[in-house]
Amino acid sequence: MIIDCHGHYTTAPKALGDYRQRQTARLGEPGAPALRLDFRIGDDEIRDSLEPHQLATQRQRGVDMTVFSPTAGAMAHHVGNAETSAHWAQACNDLVHRVTQLYPLEYAGVCQLPQSPRASLANCVAELERCVTGLGFVGCNINPDPSDGYWTDPPMTDRHWYPLYEKMVELDVPGMVHVSCSCNPNFHHTGAHYLNGDTAVFMQLVLSDLFKDFPTLRLVIPHGGGAVPYHWGRYRGLAQQLGRPPMPELLRNVFFDTCVYHQSGINLLLDVIPVENVLFASEIHGAVKGVDPQTGFHFDDTRRYVDAVHGLAAPDLHKVFELNARRVYPRLDALLAAQGR
Amino acid sequence: MIIDCHGHYTTAPKALGDYRQRQTARLGEPGAPALRLDFRIGDDEIRDSLEPHQLATQRQRGVDMTVFSPTAGAMAHHVGNAETSAHWAQACNDLVHRVTQLYPLEYAGVCQLPQSPRASLANCVAELERCVTGLGFVGCNINPDPSDGYWTDPPMTDRHWYPLYEKMVELDVPGMVHVSCSCNPNFHHTGAHYLNGDTAVFMQLVLSDLFKDFPTLRLVIPHGGGAVPYHWGRYRGLAQQLGRPPMPELLRNVFFDTCVYHQSGINLLLDVIPVENVLFASEIHGAVKGVDPQTGFHFDDTRRYVDAVHGLAAPDLHKVFELNARRVYPRLDALLAAQGR
Repeated sequence: MIIDCHGHYTTAPKALGDYRQRQTARLGEPGAPALRLDFRIGDDEIRDSLEPHQLATQRQRGVDMTVFSPTAGAMAHHVGNAETSAHWAQACNDLVHRVTQLYPLEYAGVCQLPQSPRASLANCVAELERCVTGLGFVGCNINPDPSDGYWTDPPMTDRHWYPLYEKMVELDVPGMVHVSCSCNPNFHHTGAHYLNGDTAVFMQLVLSDLFKDFPTLRLVIPHGGGAVPYHWGRYRGLAQQLGRPPMPELLRNVFFDTCVYHQSGINLLLDVIPVENVLFASEIHGAVKGVDPQTGFHFDDTRRYVDAVHGLAAPDLHKVFELNARRVYPRLDALLAAQGR
Repeated sequence: MIIDCHGHYTTAPKALGDYRQRQTARLGEPGAPALRLDFRIGDDEIRDSLEPHQLATQRQRGVDMTVFSPTAGAMAHHVGNAETSAHWAQACNDLVHRVTQLYPLEYAGVCQLPQSPRASLANCVAELERCVTGLGFVGCNINPDPSDGYWTDPPMTDRHWYPLYEKMVELDVPGMVHVSCSCNPNFHHTGAHYLNGDTAVFMQLVLSDLFKDFPTLRLVIPHGGGAVPYHWGRYRGLAQQLGRPPMPELLRNVFFDTCVYHQSGINLLLDVIPVENVLFASEIHGAVKGVDPQTGFHFDDTRRYVDAVHGLAAPDLHKVFELNARRVYPRLDALLAAQGR
C-alpha cells in the first residue's frame, strides 16, 4: 500500500475560515470575550470538500492512506494569544477528526497544536493528548516559529519544548516540523519560510543532544528536508568539524518526506539519504498546484518521481511508500492493522 | 583558466580582528568617539597569512584567480551603527586591496558594504564607488539581513535598496547576496542562516519586477543557491501559479555558485540550472574545512565535483570555470585582459 505522510485539509468548508475571521475580528473588540467554536459543518459538506478534490487526486494517483492535518499555513500561531490558538486548534482538529471518521480507510489524523509566541507548551500537551487518546490521531505538527517569520521563540532543542516531547514520547507519536504563514515580508511562506524552517531546525538538531534526552522521539522534516539533502556534504562536514556525531546517529530520530517537486530533486534525496529515512509524501493540494509543462503532470505528483528513481529496488520502494511510515507512526500502523491492512 | 568567484579573507592577520574588538568595546563607553582604523599590517604579515593557507590550497587545486572579499561572517552589520560599519568596512576592504596589490594575478577584490539595520544605503554607495573606482574592485557583497538573524529590514526588492542598485549598474559590477553572522539562536550561521538567506532572496526575486527596473543588474546567489536548485520544481511551479515570469527570464540576472560540498549536490545543480548561470566557487578556507572521509578529499574541493559531473562537455566546463565569471564580472574580465589573460 501507499501512505502519504503529509496532507493538509486545504479544501476545508468555508465555515471554518469564516469562524477564524470572526474569531480574529473579536480580538480587536476591547473587553470582548474570546470567540469559541460557533459553527456547524454537515457531513455532506465535508464529503463535497474532499471527494472531487483531494480524495479524487489521491485515488487517481494510487495513494491508499493520507496522514492528514489542518492547513499548516492557516495555523498562524502569531494571532492573538494562547487561548486564541486553543480555540482555533480545537476547531481545526475536530474537523480533521470528522474527516477520519467519514473516511477511515483514506485518512488518519495529525493535529495542529495551540502554540503561541513565548507561551508555555502546557496547552499543547493537553491538546495533543486529547487528539491522540480521544480522537485517534497518530501524530502532530510542530511549528518551530510561532512568531510566524521572526523566530523569536527558543530553538526546538531548548528545554522550553521538553514538556511537549515528553508527551510525544509517552504517546509514541512523531512530530512533523512545519512552520505556518509568514508575517515577515522577507519570507514568502511556501517559497522561503517553509524550506528555511526545515533547514534551520535540522541544523539545531545537528548541534544538540536532544535525542540523548529523548532516544525514542521522532521528528519528520518535510519538503524533502528543506536545503539539507542538497547540502548533505556541508552538514556531514559541519558535524565533523564541530565535534558532533556523524549523520547516521541523528538519522535514528530524524526523517525526511518526499515533497520535492521535480525528478532531479527526488533522485538526490534518495541518493544521499538512507532509504529508511525517507517517507513518501505529496502535500496535495498544497503549495504547488499546477501542471509542470515539462512533464505534463502535476508538480506535486511525487509518486511519479519516486517510481522513476533509478536503482531503487522494490523492497526499498516498499519502505518509502509504506514501511517507514508504519514504523515512524506506530499508531498509524496499529490503525491499519486493525483494518486488516 | 579557472576562476573561483567566492573567496573570503578568513585568514587575515590578527591585527584586523584586534581592531574590531577595540572598536566594539569602544561602543560601550558612553560619549567615547568611534574608533577609526588605528592599526598597521606589514606586507609580510599578509603574505604569511595567505601563502601557506588559502594561496597554497588555491594553487594545489589549480585555481588561477579568486574573487576575494572580507570574511562574510565578520561583517556583523548589526553591531553599532552606520558609522561603525563604515569604519569596519573600510578596514576590511583596504586590507583586501592590499592582497590584490601583492597578488594581482591570484586575487581580485570584492567589497564589504557598510550596511546597518534600517539605515540608508548612501554610505554603501560611497564605499562601493571608492572600492571600484579607487581600489579596482570588481563587485560587492550585499547582506540581505543587516540585523543578522531577525530580518527586520525590507526585502532586497524594495525601493530601499535602489540607490545601491543604481550605483552597481552605473559601475557595471555584480553583487553576491551573502548574509553575515547570526544573532538568532534559531539559526546556526553557516548551517542555516547562509542557506536560508540565499533561499529567501531568490524567492523575493521571483515575486518582484526588480529586473524590469534594472535590466543589467546581476546578482550571484552563493552556496549553490541555498535550497533553490533542489526545489527547482517548486520554484517553477510557484512562479507559474503566481503569474510570475518563467525561470529563464529571471536567470538573465541571477546566477548561482558551486559552493555545494558533495558530488550529488553539484550533479543536481548542473542538471537543473542552465550552465550559463553557474559560476565556479569553493569558499576556501570557509565554512567547511575538513576532509570528507567518504572521498579522502576536502569537502570544499569543489573542482573535483565539477570535473566529475557526467555529461558536461568541455565548452560547458569552460563556461563554469571561466567564461561565466568574466561575463558576470566585466571588471574582472578587463583586469584579466590587461594582464594578457
